[in-house]
Amino acid sequence: MAQLPIVTLTTDFGLTDSYVAEMKAVLLSRIPEARLVDVTHGVPPQDVLAGGFAVERALRAFPPGTVHVVVVDPGVGSQRRVLRVDLHRQHVLCPDNGLITWAWRRLDPGVAYELTWRPANPSATFHGRDILAPAAAMLLSDPAAPELAGPAVDPILLAITPAANHPAEAEVIHIDHFGNATTNVPAEAITAPSPRVIRIARRSLGPVRRTYADVAHGEPLALVGSSGLLEIAVRNGNAAAALGLRVGDRLTFDY
Amino acid sequence: MAQLPIVTLTTDFGLTDSYVAEMKAVLLSRIPEARLVDVTHGVPPQDVLAGGFAVERALRAFPPGTVHVVVVDPGVGSQRRVLRVDLHRQHVLCPDNGLITWAWRRLDPGVAYELTWRPANPSATFHGRDILAPAAAMLLSDPAAPELAGPAVDPILLAITPAANHPAEAEVIHIDHFGNATTNVPAEAITAPSPRVIRIARRSLGPVRRTYADVAHGEPLALVGSSGLLEIAVRNGNAAAALGLRVGDRLTFDY
Amino acid sequence: MAQLPIVTLTTDFGLTDSYVAEMKAVLLSRIPEARLVDVTHGVPPQDVLAGGFAVERALRAFPPGTVHVVVVDPGVGSQRRVLRVDLHRQHVLCPDNGLITWAWRRLDPGVAYELTWRPANPSATFHGRDILAPAAAMLLSDPAAPELAGPAVDPILLAITPAANHPAEAEVIHIDHFGNATTNVPAEAITAPSPRVIRIARRSLGPVRRTYADVAHGEPLALVGSSGLLEIAVRNGNAAAALGLRVGDRLTFDY
Repeated sequence: MAQLPIVTLTTDFGLTDSYVAEMKAVLLSRIPEARLVDVTHGVPPQDVLAGGFAVERALRAFPPGTVHVVVVDPGVGSQRRVLRVDLHRQHVLCPDNGLITWAWRRLDPGVAYELTWRPANPSATFHGRDILAPAAAMLLSDPAAPELAGPAVDPILLAITPAANHPAEAEVIHIDHFGNATTNVPAEAITAPSPRVIRIARRSLGPVRRTYADVAHGEPLALVGSSGLLEIAVRNGNAAAALGLRVGDRLTFDY
Repeated sequence: MAQLPIVTLTTDFGLTDSYVAEMKAVLLSRIPEARLVDVTHGVPPQDVLAGGFAVERALRAFPPGTVHVVVVDPGVGSQRRVLRVDLHRQHVLCPDNGLITWAWRRLDPGVAYELTWRPANPSATFHGRDILAPAAAMLLSDPAAPELAGPAVDPILLAITPAANHPAEAEVIHIDHFGNATTNVPAEAITAPSPRVIRIARRSLGPVRRTYADVAHGEPLALVGSSGLLEIAVRNGNAAAALGLRVGDRLTFDY
Repeated sequence: MAQLPIVTLTTDFGLTDSYVAEMKAVLLSRIPEARLVDVTHGVPPQDVLAGGFAVERALRAFPPGTVHVVVVDPGVGSQRRVLRVDLHRQHVLCPDNGLITWAWRRLDPGVAYELTWRPANPSATFHGRDILAPAAAMLLSDPAAPELAGPAVDPILLAITPAANHPAEAEVIHIDHFGNATTNVPAEAITAPSPRVIRIARRSLGPVRRTYADVAHGEPLALVGSSGLLEIAVRNGNAAAALGLRVGDRLTFDY
């Protein structure tokens, strides 16, 4: 059968209000057969780096044609642009505030357009519902609709943490639910040579391991996580709590 | 294509137990093609006002024919009635405890019936799964089924906070995930004349603004939110934390 | 119409990361029409007993043919087996760490197989996405696929809390979102004779009640909950907080 249309949602809206459901109402009213998947609504309020990290993971996971609606939008109601980015054979609709930067740098080259389409009477505070959700429905109906592709733009607006091409730039970019700390070091940056010892927070983690079970219970380690990035973990424990890790902490490598 | 049936769920069940999934199991067993949308399961336990506020927003957002199952039910197992309310071309199934009051007052006139249908062996503690979910499936299959419309009733049971027809009744009715404080003041109550200065918690917010960007970063403001109600916010901040706001706080207007 | 395929997901992944969505991406890529239902992603990290309790409730709730993917997996990356369990006319895919034990003991006899199928390049840390989700899709496509049924195994690995066949073994096994405490005492164990007084935390709860409304507001009680197990509650209150209850607390019965 033909692939059913998939729309994912990534926001900082939380789950206690009706906001996410209001976006889904717009989508289902226009594309009743769309499959809606929540990536997360737990992005810390207005945390563009964390939102952008989720976007890249979603782009790697979903099939071609998926539309990703991403709303972490401290500038809603201001003159900030809205983007439609075609990347990795999928589409991302998001404010032009750096949300797409991480994915844009890590994945194959894409194209970004300003999304100039506006409904008749959008609210001033809820563009996710009033602009991005209907635009996602329009995009699924007709990817070539001219009103969905304004001028091509360079979406690299913010200097968010780059992928570490050099060990001196290695740092923690995300702490997950288990307390695992993802870094900006891609797997390919730590092979040939691979560091003999990785250090963080004055702790030696030894070399890169393959899996948690390579160290004893309660011991810290570094391994390539499911994101393809170097990750700091504690076997059967919480690395962020045990080692006092935070986003922005630096790593060092001994060769 | 024909609209697929949509059922929304609004509860105070939280997301750590299997309760919500058990309701969905009942719905999907009977209406496999139904589209299920969570409005929220984060209503504070037994907080009928907060649940009722979500119901109104959901009714405004979803298309005709949607069935809303709402379970905030401190009286489960007692003699409290269950309602089937036809409102805004949609259906709401909920206990008769005031959950529907806010929507009933804000939207166009509806009709409320007692839902007298009961399954053979309902549990005494989980009517959401055993009564409301199967009734929702029955309602989607046959909206005219006689067992789903008992005696017509007046559902206005509780004196929950009314929409403010007079400035002296203006108060905060909801604090959202971002710390924005929604009030019971509809947009139409603050035009012609519009107040010169809005005050809350001994702070002056100035006049009604259009959007967050109308004030400087970190400054408080009042604007009409995406609910059509007056809202107190702080640009790029958390108004509830910054101003110490709580549900029930009063506002004043200078004309 | 034919039943649409249903896949449920039960994990300790939380809702702030993209992990759950990545599993759903695998499922929807392969079985676009699958209905995906979250049981919970709020199992306490690595808490196999809590996860197993949710599995039993899900098995009781969902229709025949449902596939349940369950990932609470402290041993991911080690040599622990993965199971495919056919139970209650449904399928469970989970690590062989005791997650299935509670359901296995409480429901009718099932069959457990080692799931030996592996994809070409699974990650070492995310078997939910790389092994269990694709296996679930394969199972929906062809339940008789030989690679999904390895050697039959006895999945009773862990001595998790058993159902109480004797009053001396009665204890709390789960605290829910409302603070209700579920015990391991099935309804059938407290009839003929039914205890005259149930005690916990030095409080007398009187006999087994039918529903919350059988006691005054704020009073504790014991009743058979929607799980078919004895439950400790406080009417319109939080029993865990009011009585200081925790998983593992013992109950006593006076006859």
